[in-house]
Amino acid sequence: MSSSFGEKVKITIFGQSHSEGIGVVIDGLPVGEPIDMEEIQKFMKRRAPGRNAYSTPRKEEDMPRILSGLFEGKTCGAPLCAVIENTNTRSKDYDKLKDLPRPGHGDYTAWVKYQGANDYRGGGHFSGRLTAPLCFAGAVCMQILERKGIHVGAHILSIKGVEDTPFHGVQIQAEELEKIAQKEFPVQNDRAGEAMQAAILAAKEKLDSVGGIIECAVVGLPVGVGEPMFDGLESRLAAAVFAIPAVKGVEFGEGFGVAALFGSENNDSFYYEADGRVCTKTNHHGGSLGGISSGMPLLLRAAFKPTPSIGQEQETVSLEKRQKETLAVGGRHDPCIVPRAVPCVEAAVAVTLLDLLCRMER
Amino acid sequence: MSSSFGEKVKITIFGQSHSEGIGVVIDGLPVGEPIDMEEIQKFMKRRAPGRNAYSTPRKEEDMPRILSGLFEGKTCGAPLCAVIENTNTRSKDYDKLKDLPRPGHGDYTAWVKYQGANDYRGGGHFSGRLTAPLCFAGAVCMQILERKGIHVGAHILSIKGVEDTPFHGVQIQAEELEKIAQKEFPVQNDRAGEAMQAAILAAKEKLDSVGGIIECAVVGLPVGVGEPMFDGLESRLAAAVFAIPAVKGVEFGEGFGVAALFGSENNDSFYYEADGRVCTKTNHHGGSLGGISSGMPLLLRAAFKPTPSIGQEQETVSLEKRQKETLAVGGRHDPCIVPRAVPCVEAAVAVTLLDLLCRMER
Amino acid sequence: MSSSFGEKVKITIFGQSHSEGIGVVIDGLPVGEPIDMEEIQKFMKRRAPGRNAYSTPRKEEDMPRILSGLFEGKTCGAPLCAVIENTNTRSKDYDKLKDLPRPGHGDYTAWVKYQGANDYRGGGHFSGRLTAPLCFAGAVCMQILERKGIHVGAHILSIKGVEDTPFHGVQIQAEELEKIAQKEFPVQNDRAGEAMQAAILAAKEKLDSVGGIIECAVVGLPVGVGEPMFDGLESRLAAAVFAIPAVKGVEFGEGFGVAALFGSENNDSFYYEADGRVCTKTNHHGGSLGGISSGMPLLLRAAFKPTPSIGQEQETVSLEKRQKETLAVGGRHDPCIVPRAVPCVEAAVAVTLLDLLCRMER
Amino acid sequence: MSSSFGEKVKITIFGQSHSEGIGVVIDGLPVGEPIDMEEIQKFMKRRAPGRNAYSTPRKEEDMPRILSGLFEGKTCGAPLCAVIENTNTRSKDYDKLKDLPRPGHGDYTAWVKYQGANDYRGGGHFSGRLTAPLCFAGAVCMQILERKGIHVGAHILSIKGVEDTPFHGVQIQAEELEKIAQKEFPVQNDRAGEAMQAAILAAKEKLDSVGGIIECAVVGLPVGVGEPMFDGLESRLAAAVFAIPAVKGVEFGEGFGVAALFGSENNDSFYYEADGRVCTKTNHHGGSLGGISSGMPLLLRAAFKPTPSIGQEQETVSLEKRQKETLAVGGRHDPCIVPRAVPCVEAAVAVTLLDLLCRMER
Repeated sequence: MSSSFGEKVKITIFGQSHSEGIGVVIDGLPVGEPIDMEEIQKFMKRRAPGRNAYSTPRKEEDMPRILSGLFEGKTCGAPLCAVIENTNTRSKDYDKLKDLPRPGHGDYTAWVKYQGANDYRGGGHFSGRLTAPLCFAGAVCMQILERKGIHVGAHILSIKGVEDTPFHGVQIQAEELEKIAQKEFPVQNDRAGEAMQAAILAAKEKLDSVGGIIECAVVGLPVGVGEPMFDGLESRLAAAVFAIPAVKGVEFGEGFGVAALFGSENNDSFYYEADGRVCTKTNHHGGSLGGISSGMPLLLRAAFKPTPSIGQEQETVSLEKRQKETLAVGGRHDPCIVPRAVPCVEAAVAVTLLDLLCRMER
Repeated sequence: MSSSFGEKVKITIFGQSHSEGIGVVIDGLPVGEPIDMEEIQKFMKRRAPGRNAYSTPRKEEDMPRILSGLFEGKTCGAPLCAVIENTNTRSKDYDKLKDLPRPGHGDYTAWVKYQGANDYRGGGHFSGRLTAPLCFAGAVCMQILERKGIHVGAHILSIKGVEDTPFHGVQIQAEELEKIAQKEFPVQNDRAGEAMQAAILAAKEKLDSVGGIIECAVVGLPVGVGEPMFDGLESRLAAAVFAIPAVKGVEFGEGFGVAALFGSENNDSFYYEADGRVCTKTNHHGGSLGGISSGMPLLLRAAFKPTPSIGQEQETVSLEKRQKETLAVGGRHDPCIVPRAVPCVEAAVAVTLLDLLCRMER
Repeated sequence: MSSSFGEKVKITIFGQSHSEGIGVVIDGLPVGEPIDMEEIQKFMKRRAPGRNAYSTPRKEEDMPRILSGLFEGKTCGAPLCAVIENTNTRSKDYDKLKDLPRPGHGDYTAWVKYQGANDYRGGGHFSGRLTAPLCFAGAVCMQILERKGIHVGAHILSIKGVEDTPFHGVQIQAEELEKIAQKEFPVQNDRAGEAMQAAILAAKEKLDSVGGIIECAVVGLPVGVGEPMFDGLESRLAAAVFAIPAVKGVEFGEGFGVAALFGSENNDSFYYEADGRVCTKTNHHGGSLGGISSGMPLLLRAAFKPTPSIGQEQETVSLEKRQKETLAVGGRHDPCIVPRAVPCVEAAVAVTLLDLLCRMER
Repeated sequence: MSSSFGEKVKITIFGQSHSEGIGVVIDGLPVGEPIDMEEIQKFMKRRAPGRNAYSTPRKEEDMPRILSGLFEGKTCGAPLCAVIENTNTRSKDYDKLKDLPRPGHGDYTAWVKYQGANDYRGGGHFSGRLTAPLCFAGAVCMQILERKGIHVGAHILSIKGVEDTPFHGVQIQAEELEKIAQKEFPVQNDRAGEAMQAAILAAKEKLDSVGGIIECAVVGLPVGVGEPMFDGLESRLAAAVFAIPAVKGVEFGEGFGVAALFGSENNDSFYYEADGRVCTKTNHHGGSLGGISSGMPLLLRAAFKPTPSIGQEQETVSLEKRQKETLAVGGRHDPCIVPRAVPCVEAAVAVTLLDLLCRMER
């Protein structure tokens, strides 16, 4: 495995869905930074399950205990380790999955890769539960970024065809991002949000699930973040976001839409703002040119597949008997992971940006 | 900068568009592997400019000279270094770009990041020319992969709205990939290819440019490739592909389409093939489950923006005079980079897969 | 900071002397390896303080709790995290060290580097206590190495001029290493051991401390371990051993003695063993040629400085008042760290070798 | 292999003794730094062979050609690649070494590791010739360090028992280092130097070789350089210096001498200099405390074994016939590598320090 990410600010995530605990070590954080635990708790609640009808009723005790890395409430140079105990686990729910890989999950590939030794309970290290320590790390990084005037925020752009208003590429503000973060269902247009929730519940009713798209924006990023050729802004952000389970696509700015545009349409003209900053009139480039931040808002979208664990009967195989079987996944699953994935995307983005920011050439 | 990629098989790319030379060092290649230089030349020709009406007339002497790493025609354990001389450069074409950043290019961001010390001629290290050593490295890796039964191939999926037949997610074969690689315009449906070429030439006529989408498939990949949580298959491949200039989106399998599907539609059922292999009936997952290869064909799509260098007049700024200016980019540019980018995507994929394959736990 | 080590098997150590806990994450371990917790406990006891007159009376509850990475007692592919709670800490002992850096310690350099935000209590992340998680990681790696026939063992070679019999470069056996590991005072010649203990107690009496040299051997290492040019055997082992606090020198085989030899003396002749192995008649090279293991016993020596914390009055400065001060370090300190450092050296070596072994080209 | 070193300033060395060329890529250099090619040439000449009776008569055309990374004579952010052509090679000299591994060389271990595919000519990638690109990289880094007031210099401390005056741990000055660098035989005491040269020539006469110790000092290093726990100053410097062929020991400050000292002797008292700097009265710690630079001169010593290639007849084996053989190494070899290794140690130190300096937390 390779459960570390980052060069200068490096996170290492550990734990399985049903191991004694899960957590994260964050090394290389800027020193002397106060960490507000209440803010972290608030952030992590946005990911926590069991809060409403469209998320799993499984409860998690997700508030991490910090073992190291802080001194008198501030980062002290030593690696910060946070641990979340695994308490509310029902391993029996997963017993039959040892033999019957769930379609759409990593059960089968992990079984082959780890030669049958992998911890299959609850998806092991592949579980969505491992995004809890990612969110913790993201919340820590976000506090430091915000002190530098950098704000990260995301919303649900679409679920099963229902679309929210996209972010405005040029005018998006930190205040809007903050407002969305406080909503239980993070969309810009609440009407669209209600239709999305209805679509989720309709799928749940049919023991089915739905996917969606999350859009994330970053404002206040200075010019110059990103280390081409291989650690450019898009490369690093995509690597981090694709590490979130269920992500199948990542795009920046105009994204896949560029295929239909002329250069004369897609190019963003430069101009001088009254305050002397160089800006672009439009933001098809999504805040990154040549793998380096342009000073314009960063815009990223990530596609999440429908939760593969569904109550409907599906075809699979018995790995032991080497024959076909059917499987209806029991347990407590989200009919749509997208709402809880919103802070995960923000976290992946925040962790990546703080790392790149700290790597910037002076 | 960060111009290295890979852990076990590591490539380091160097050079600027107009420096004395460009090249690549490949460290960690499997030893004793014969390298067929003719095959490499054939592969690199697919990227070479100046071959037809829809690519830049600028000629490159792109056959690299190998300085090290081979002994008696085989990899010998030492890092392989290949150098391409830069001969046909016209630096004067770029003189005014020092002051006037081209919209859609990295000129401005590089200027800020490198405090004005960057080599702006021809885009410097950000030039598409730097994909030549990437293609060299890809061609080397591809030869080794092919000996292991792994075949990488790509085609143009769309240009300015004209669409080629997509790869069949389940039935795609090495022979088809090989056939496309031999075409001058790499599409499945040549009729679509002609329409694409017409669209490119129409844009060229208007001193404009167009973008497109490239689809890449890999067949023969064994189960188990990819190192989650952060070096999963999608994370690593996306990082590599986003390092190619002009890429703004990357997706796998169903990609952004997952947002419109039910779980019951998107999940791919497992079954046993007659030969005892576990397969899936459909391939919405695009060959990766949990960040690990499933043994099904890998499917990746990358969106390329229209070439930002266009002859039309565009708005920009003078960095020196701090005022607005207009700019019509001269020089010799592709009206569409997509056809020449096809082998670049294959190369990025091949380099990434050989690295991950060599990192696999035994 | 940079508290990770290793490429394929990677350890990340966290914690401060007086933080809530300390521990280690080990990523990339071979899968399906049973871990014997009793063996680990036995190994860690060799490092534990408070066992006799020549070590600090401070007790540690050093048995780690494993949070993740094992499933049914075996490594499962997921990162293994082990945590040791910090319970028996007396932070008040260290209060005045905030202002008065202890001579020979990292107090002053850490204070400058971390701009006064570092956790000075007990040396923070620089404390010898952080070798407990290193020993845990080493004990895990050693179990896996031993299953491959590779044995790591060390002894005290000298303390304050008293010398133990050095390892025989060619004939050293796993059984001898095992026997020494079971001794409370790990030397080959117990008479020398008694003289060393007397020297330690004499220093303690004078509120002083002494240093020494540890010699470590590895038998059973196959030919081919080590990744030149920069990750050769010596480079990696030295990097790991120098990470143990108080180490000021590392040498291999003949070490600094080579400066007095002719090539004709220092070169080790090759010959064929009856069993067909290529061996050397002597072992001046210490088991490494060209940075790659030769199949002969690996021989490494590390010099440890006298514990800098001594009860005698020393000259230092007040960082706040910017004037000179004197300091007699209170608290509970070892008059000689060398006996407890023996398993630390073994651990550093074991962790490094398992990593390099897993990185070997196939 | 693993031929890259460094995190922020990363060097990648390529080439074999008899391949078409050798060289280095340096990525991550500070930008806008002028590089004085004459200074580089002067530095590299100190390593060049063929200059006198005690070095190999083999000539090298060692002035590298810079392919990339400079623009208008200054570093421009792009990786700097320098290539040295291999012209004066006599491959026939090495023909029989394919079968008969030279005692004391990496021939045998490389042959096993690379399964017979390694380039054995002249030692391939293991050749001392590969220190030429290391010296180039060191010379580049040294120019940048010097502009920051950091000076690196080394001398021969001993050869075959003849000793030079060691550096004064506290009072060593940049000017002294500079003076030694200009000497053909770099020692402090020229009388000792003459005796060393006599010892070398006496060994040469007998077709034998001798080893020695190099001492390196760095003055002007600010407090705070080094990234513990695993990238501390000693760990990184030792890793770099052990990558130089023939190094068998590395120590800092008092080094192995610490084993004979009391803590009260070895601890260096802090005091305030008149100019307000915190200094130590003595420098047993060699400029590093807790793996972090203390602001005092850095002191490092490296032991070099006698050149293993000697004209005397030695015992070895025929790998093909699997029987014993004798071998007298022909070709052109240094009877003592130490004088030419002096700039190599300086280069390894300079490359490491610039990397660590650029990694420092702000």
